[in-house]
Amino acid sequence: MKIAFIGLGHMGGPMAVNLQKAGHSVAAFDLSKPACDKFAAAGLTIAASAEAAVQGAEVVISMLPASRHVQALYLGAGATGEGGLLAHIAPGTLVIDSSTIAAATSQQVARAADAAGIDFIDAPVSGGTGGAIAGTLTFMVGASAAQLERARPVLEKMGSNIFHAGSVGAGQTAKICNNMLLGILMIGTSEAIALGVANGLDPRVLSEIMRRSSGGNWALEKYNPWPGVQENAPSSKDYAGGFGTDLMLKDLGLAQENAGAVQASTPLGGLARSLYAMHSMSGHGGLDFSSIVQSLQKRAS
Amino acid sequence: MKIAFIGLGHMGGPMAVNLQKAGHSVAAFDLSKPACDKFAAAGLTIAASAEAAVQGAEVVISMLPASRHVQALYLGAGATGEGGLLAHIAPGTLVIDSSTIAAATSQQVARAADAAGIDFIDAPVSGGTGGAIAGTLTFMVGASAAQLERARPVLEKMGSNIFHAGSVGAGQTAKICNNMLLGILMIGTSEAIALGVANGLDPRVLSEIMRRSSGGNWALEKYNPWPGVQENAPSSKDYAGGFGTDLMLKDLGLAQENAGAVQASTPLGGLARSLYAMHSMSGHGGLDFSSIVQSLQKRAS
Amino acid sequence: MKIAFIGLGHMGGPMAVNLQKAGHSVAAFDLSKPACDKFAAAGLTIAASAEAAVQGAEVVISMLPASRHVQALYLGAGATGEGGLLAHIAPGTLVIDSSTIAAATSQQVARAADAAGIDFIDAPVSGGTGGAIAGTLTFMVGASAAQLERARPVLEKMGSNIFHAGSVGAGQTAKICNNMLLGILMIGTSEAIALGVANGLDPRVLSEIMRRSSGGNWALEKYNPWPGVQENAPSSKDYAGGFGTDLMLKDLGLAQENAGAVQASTPLGGLARSLYAMHSMSGHGGLDFSSIVQSLQKRAS
Amino acid sequence: MKIAFIGLGHMGGPMAVNLQKAGHSVAAFDLSKPACDKFAAAGLTIAASAEAAVQGAEVVISMLPASRHVQALYLGAGATGEGGLLAHIAPGTLVIDSSTIAAATSQQVARAADAAGIDFIDAPVSGGTGGAIAGTLTFMVGASAAQLERARPVLEKMGSNIFHAGSVGAGQTAKICNNMLLGILMIGTSEAIALGVANGLDPRVLSEIMRRSSGGNWALEKYNPWPGVQENAPSSKDYAGGFGTDLMLKDLGLAQENAGAVQASTPLGGLARSLYAMHSMSGHGGLDFSSIVQSLQKRAS
Repeated sequence: MKIAFIGLGHMGGPMAVNLQKAGHSVAAFDLSKPACDKFAAAGLTIAASAEAAVQGAEVVISMLPASRHVQALYLGAGATGEGGLLAHIAPGTLVIDSSTIAAATSQQVARAADAAGIDFIDAPVSGGTGGAIAGTLTFMVGASAAQLERARPVLEKMGSNIFHAGSVGAGQTAKICNNMLLGILMIGTSEAIALGVANGLDPRVLSEIMRRSSGGNWALEKYNPWPGVQENAPSSKDYAGGFGTDLMLKDLGLAQENAGAVQASTPLGGLARSLYAMHSMSGHGGLDFSSIVQSLQKRAS
Repeated sequence: MKIAFIGLGHMGGPMAVNLQKAGHSVAAFDLSKPACDKFAAAGLTIAASAEAAVQGAEVVISMLPASRHVQALYLGAGATGEGGLLAHIAPGTLVIDSSTIAAATSQQVARAADAAGIDFIDAPVSGGTGGAIAGTLTFMVGASAAQLERARPVLEKMGSNIFHAGSVGAGQTAKICNNMLLGILMIGTSEAIALGVANGLDPRVLSEIMRRSSGGNWALEKYNPWPGVQENAPSSKDYAGGFGTDLMLKDLGLAQENAGAVQASTPLGGLARSLYAMHSMSGHGGLDFSSIVQSLQKRAS
Repeated sequence: MKIAFIGLGHMGGPMAVNLQKAGHSVAAFDLSKPACDKFAAAGLTIAASAEAAVQGAEVVISMLPASRHVQALYLGAGATGEGGLLAHIAPGTLVIDSSTIAAATSQQVARAADAAGIDFIDAPVSGGTGGAIAGTLTFMVGASAAQLERARPVLEKMGSNIFHAGSVGAGQTAKICNNMLLGILMIGTSEAIALGVANGLDPRVLSEIMRRSSGGNWALEKYNPWPGVQENAPSSKDYAGGFGTDLMLKDLGLAQENAGAVQASTPLGGLARSLYAMHSMSGHGGLDFSSIVQSLQKRAS
Repeated sequence: MKIAFIGLGHMGGPMAVNLQKAGHSVAAFDLSKPACDKFAAAGLTIAASAEAAVQGAEVVISMLPASRHVQALYLGAGATGEGGLLAHIAPGTLVIDSSTIAAATSQQVARAADAAGIDFIDAPVSGGTGGAIAGTLTFMVGASAAQLERARPVLEKMGSNIFHAGSVGAGQTAKICNNMLLGILMIGTSEAIALGVANGLDPRVLSEIMRRSSGGNWALEKYNPWPGVQENAPSSKDYAGGFGTDLMLKDLGLAQENAGAVQASTPLGGLARSLYAMHSMSGHGGLDFSSIVQSLQKRAS
């Protein structure tokens, strides 16, 4: 199958490589020349422009940083459709946007695509760069059932879990709901362990008790924030790698933007955003998000 | 073995019954006459007083509502040891307190017991009245290793999980850490589902996605707060039964009392307490604690 | 002076009336026919359209509900400037937008206006409908010093306090900062009084002590949330009138949107938004925002 | 008048000195020898013990760090009254405790005093060491009207504002309500200014706008947290002096202890405690509490 792939960052690059390895013909593009060069070296065919990449493509995939980049790519600078990539994509093409952006933006682009006879779906991912390289990402898809079936063979080359969240935009919503909950449970788990340790408990013993009790959650299973409790967790590697504080902050910001739009109340989710923002402002934006536990411990002044 | 059991409430009564069923000789007592009558009818031998109950007992177990009741029982009203039950318990006896109280109180009573040659350990439980009746409670034990081994055969008649949290008081600390985390997870899960639903997502679909992703936690596994998602959860039974809002509020209050004493920071745990307090004040203290999700949804005014 | 006034709601209508009373020639317009009729009856000259209203105007003033209305009015539906009112306004005209909207939107419209040789400034107000009718509003203005001096004679007919917050957009920022702080201090004041009352203190006595101490704030001076403490406060009139919960919720939402955009941390401001959202969802969106105190008190279930 | 004064710390010492300067005969005592020596040098008569100090005293005043010290002083170690100072105070004596402690402790001591025919009232202060030296403290008094009138001539030698909060314990409650509100206002004010500055506003201009608008509060009047806005505020002196973060943390802890006891909901007050605890743990416990604004700003990592 002929696939155009736009956006060759830490996530998009390896995803495109996996598609090519699976036998697809991939035309890739990124506005950054170094990114193009890096993945050309990895074997990808680089197109001269986004417009060139989508020529003759049956499927277009994009992986960009934020809502405004997706709007600019598909709709053009004026947000009118003029100058946007949609005008260069053939009717009948399937467009899969895997960026994590506002659900409202996914829906806005989908409407413009629909008017041009193009199928646009959102399919944000979780799983990090490790999952992107290994091809074990989780996709949360907003699409009709038919669109999802059309996308499935392609998604399966990049990921191992494919969830159908609902119609277009629902993939984004599911992702921010999940990540808001993740942000909360990481802080909650950190508070609980820190409180226990302040009372003299062993963090390993307490973690194990809670993991097997009603406090059990993904952080206690796979990603314990306390150094030394789990050998492979970022906490045991000086919080290097993993999922950065600033990326969690971005997702919590999207959740708050969404909550404001639908007038939802998210007391813990909103507070989690402010706590990660404080943590980032104190210079820890590049550390794994589980390093938030440090803000709850006594430090040398 | 000859066992004295003090406190025959919804938890203590069935626990004492299980000990008797297991072949132990149980002398039970409660200050409430109706409670004594109810469990006399269930086959328990009721003693004339707490002092009578502990006569000749090898093990004494207590299950009381709050710190002040445990202090009053063992130390007497003046908190001097005079008039307290410790004076009537033979040296060498093992005392197991399964009440959920302040760790500092457990330690205070343990010191007085130790001075009288009595082994005092804390062993608060989780698992609810269902677990008490079925004998499948979880015990979180604060004791020396030797004390725990001495208590184990008795605890095994009432529960299926026995965790050694650390020395005396550690059982209480582990329990409030776990329940603080549980209180946070339940609100966080409620916020996430409510946000998804406000965006048009199906609560079952979203719950299943998060359960299998990094938002996964005990509430999504066993105790989904959204009505209709899990058949056996309290949310599907009008929030009847389960673990009451006011009981969660009590445990979160103990966690805050502890956090204040050790100067720990618990931003989400403290906020969770205030949110359950608001929920209780609006008339929902008797509903299962997962009903907190109602405070995050639009209601008819 | 010839003035066009767009937006004749509870605030805009009386503001336009005050300008006419001061001797200006006002051409008014609103998309709602009943609003036009109501203020025609009050003596305003109603134009056939927004385009007709701005014909020959030296000053254009707008008072609209939200960012999207201001964008649609001045820039047109496509956000391209085509179809927008700017195309009908003569170069050299001063446009004063008194809507409370996102600072980013004010700046976006100002750039388009500037390109057309039009002076666009933001001047959101506080003071409520009472201040609009009495002509005692507070204006927070984002403009150059020269633009502000040009606007001052007009603003003085509608308000008694005019603050220069900074360049365009700064009026909006100042307003949401102030209102975020107001939302926080109203809840904080409510918590403090409710805590005192729960301990048996007289709310009047406690309010007076705090008013004269370091807890002193605007709510204790002018707007005590506890019924019966201040005769003229909305709390003593069943929370009727005043500044509605849903309006406070809107402003706190703008503050959070802004905080997300600049990655600021606002733990109390974010929590205040969620608490007002809960209060609104429980059916109190139309009550004065000081009714938030009710959510902190015990109620009959 | 013959006055015994127990507790010669940064507050108590200068208060006792002011009483002596006003012509009273003061017998002072502190468990710390250096404290006694320091104020002996300032002219105070130091008694050999607390028991000696209260011999023949018409009024006894105490100024101690925390609840446990007040309990130990008046009731003795065993909390039985035995070994406590009350046994050495003559019936009819007036005892004024100016410590900031739990209201429940004030009431507990008052009951024991009452049984011995002694008048015990609580009169915690605000105003800091500056106010203690200048004799301009604010007293919040829990007492009967007759007891307050008896105490007034003495209090007037040490302070300029005397508030009657209610019966015994009410002084403590009023103080923690006020200080909880102060802690909230300071963080709220910090958030608002930081948000404005992040948007390019001048902190002086924004502070002045809010001070004169509905965000107005004591912090904006007297104690602006942003460096350089008010010359005499601690923020303009590297947060030296003033009211330390750890003292605010203690008062917020008392407020939470109280809220837990009466099941009040204090979402902002509880969060404020956790934020000051984080600030203290990061090494800022000795700085003025307005330094909390630093945790909301971007810092060099």
